[in-house]
Amino acid sequence: MSPERSKRVPPGIIVHGGAGRKLDMRAHRRGVRRAALAGHRILLEGGSALDAVVAAVVDMEDDATFNCGTGSALTLDGTVEMDAAVMTDDLRCGAVGALDRVKNPILVARKVMEMTDHVFLVGPGARRFARRMGFRSYDPIVPRRRKQYREMIGRLAQGRNPPYLPRLTSTAGEMGLGTVGAVARDAEGRLAAATSTGAMMLHLPGRVGDTPIIGAGTYADACGAVSATGHGEEIIRLVWAARAAQLMRRMTAPRAVRLAVELATESGCRGGLIAIDRHGRVGYGFNTRSMSWAHAGRTGLRVF
Amino acid sequence: MSPERSKRVPPGIIVHGGAGRKLDMRAHRRGVRRAALAGHRILLEGGSALDAVVAAVVDMEDDATFNCGTGSALTLDGTVEMDAAVMTDDLRCGAVGALDRVKNPILVARKVMEMTDHVFLVGPGARRFARRMGFRSYDPIVPRRRKQYREMIGRLAQGRNPPYLPRLTSTAGEMGLGTVGAVARDAEGRLAAATSTGAMMLHLPGRVGDTPIIGAGTYADACGAVSATGHGEEIIRLVWAARAAQLMRRMTAPRAVRLAVELATESGCRGGLIAIDRHGRVGYGFNTRSMSWAHAGRTGLRVF
Repeated sequence: MSPERSKRVPPGIIVHGGAGRKLDMRAHRRGVRRAALAGHRILLEGGSALDAVVAAVVDMEDDATFNCGTGSALTLDGTVEMDAAVMTDDLRCGAVGALDRVKNPILVARKVMEMTDHVFLVGPGARRFARRMGFRSYDPIVPRRRKQYREMIGRLAQGRNPPYLPRLTSTAGEMGLGTVGAVARDAEGRLAAATSTGAMMLHLPGRVGDTPIIGAGTYADACGAVSATGHGEEIIRLVWAARAAQLMRRMTAPRAVRLAVELATESGCRGGLIAIDRHGRVGYGFNTRSMSWAHAGRTGLRVF
Repeated sequence: MSPERSKRVPPGIIVHGGAGRKLDMRAHRRGVRRAALAGHRILLEGGSALDAVVAAVVDMEDDATFNCGTGSALTLDGTVEMDAAVMTDDLRCGAVGALDRVKNPILVARKVMEMTDHVFLVGPGARRFARRMGFRSYDPIVPRRRKQYREMIGRLAQGRNPPYLPRLTSTAGEMGLGTVGAVARDAEGRLAAATSTGAMMLHLPGRVGDTPIIGAGTYADACGAVSATGHGEEIIRLVWAARAAQLMRRMTAPRAVRLAVELATESGCRGGLIAIDRHGRVGYGFNTRSMSWAHAGRTGLRVF
């Protein structure tokens, strides 16, 4: 990174707490605010964009308000399977999918990036890797989710289809609610993106959404960093995050996000995006009813 | 699809049998030839591009020459975990990752696409789904792979690192050897892509490569269909298949493939691509020592 570029803009971070229907706006506001400040503090102390986005996401993973880490949604089996990914502007990346029984999937994703020559570990293999890296067994299920699960399974049982069958889970689930993400630019001009989710309620065990798919839910390159949230399957089809990053080659983050959201709307994809470009400009946008976000940077703190 | 468009070019299919070092060129030539003809037969009988690419890939999955289905490479544990994806030009897609004990992962990927509202199932969840869809338990390990595994594990044991540790598996593995894929255009002008792999030798259990990642190893949209092979992690970083598909919006498949391969070479990504555009033109290219491929279409049969 050139020092010339690094001086242009003070470091900044923008985080999101998911797009869709919102249950508790106050808790979301408090959560994204705290996460953005946690990441920003690291940036102000000279920390890397990578450290900042990971810290922000860990903060939200530990907050049961959000659908990731502690408080994750439950699968059709009543278990938790989490997805997370992290990527830096030099195209280094790590991701985990369908990972259970850890506290902070984003930290495991970072270990995949830093300690292996793989990019993506899933399922029991990802869990074993986590244990070898020292992550202890942890139950991320909270009572609220158990209650919600019982109610939803009850409604399903009254329906026509046996619960595991087709075309059912996404309508039954809360669409993308509470997936979290962060993108940042540090004092040296480096960019990073991180995303983490507990996926949607009642998905089939083993289902992986857009979050850990490099290019779909998470992407970063020299021109920008992106984290997406929303209907995972649609986001995968659109390769949404990579497309938004590509737009930042020729436009600012706010414009790239606007265009990417338009593209999604045309394709029937519901969701939201946050992005930061190489000059530190941030963008956020969504075509769902709402998306929680917070930005901490040169202009102070802004919360949705 | 407009009838005007459909009449322009007879249907065609191109398949690949992987890029990298080749062990048995004769077997590869025979295998890709047979797969291309199997897919082409379906197209000539009025079958869909989807049916054709799936049939071609099934043919190669059942041929132990290739690193997919029967004859897949073994993980560090000596087990088999397979990845596969299928996608059509209307952006429908299905994929499986780290799937064990089935004969034809590509057929399970198709079931994910057709029978669920998910896109991607991994690990034991994917296996359970396969069983519910009627796929019987099958051991895809062949004696040649067991022998190779014992030799490679022996060499690893003499090395400095304990086998599960960092920066080891891709150098120990055969780079991308024998991943297979097919892209086709049918008589109605529809496009489809399919890719299947047994991944690289001695990868960490749970590792998922580019093959089942929509946008990385497999992609299709209204402008073109793409299947990639090579160093999975590098292909994921580049979102390679989606990028090649995007190039086909403004250029032919051969030119798009050439440009995509140049891009990969610049980025240090080793691999190969096949592509077909909406006018039925096919492209293939690679920056590895070799790639096996076969094309069956208007101009007859061509084999690498």
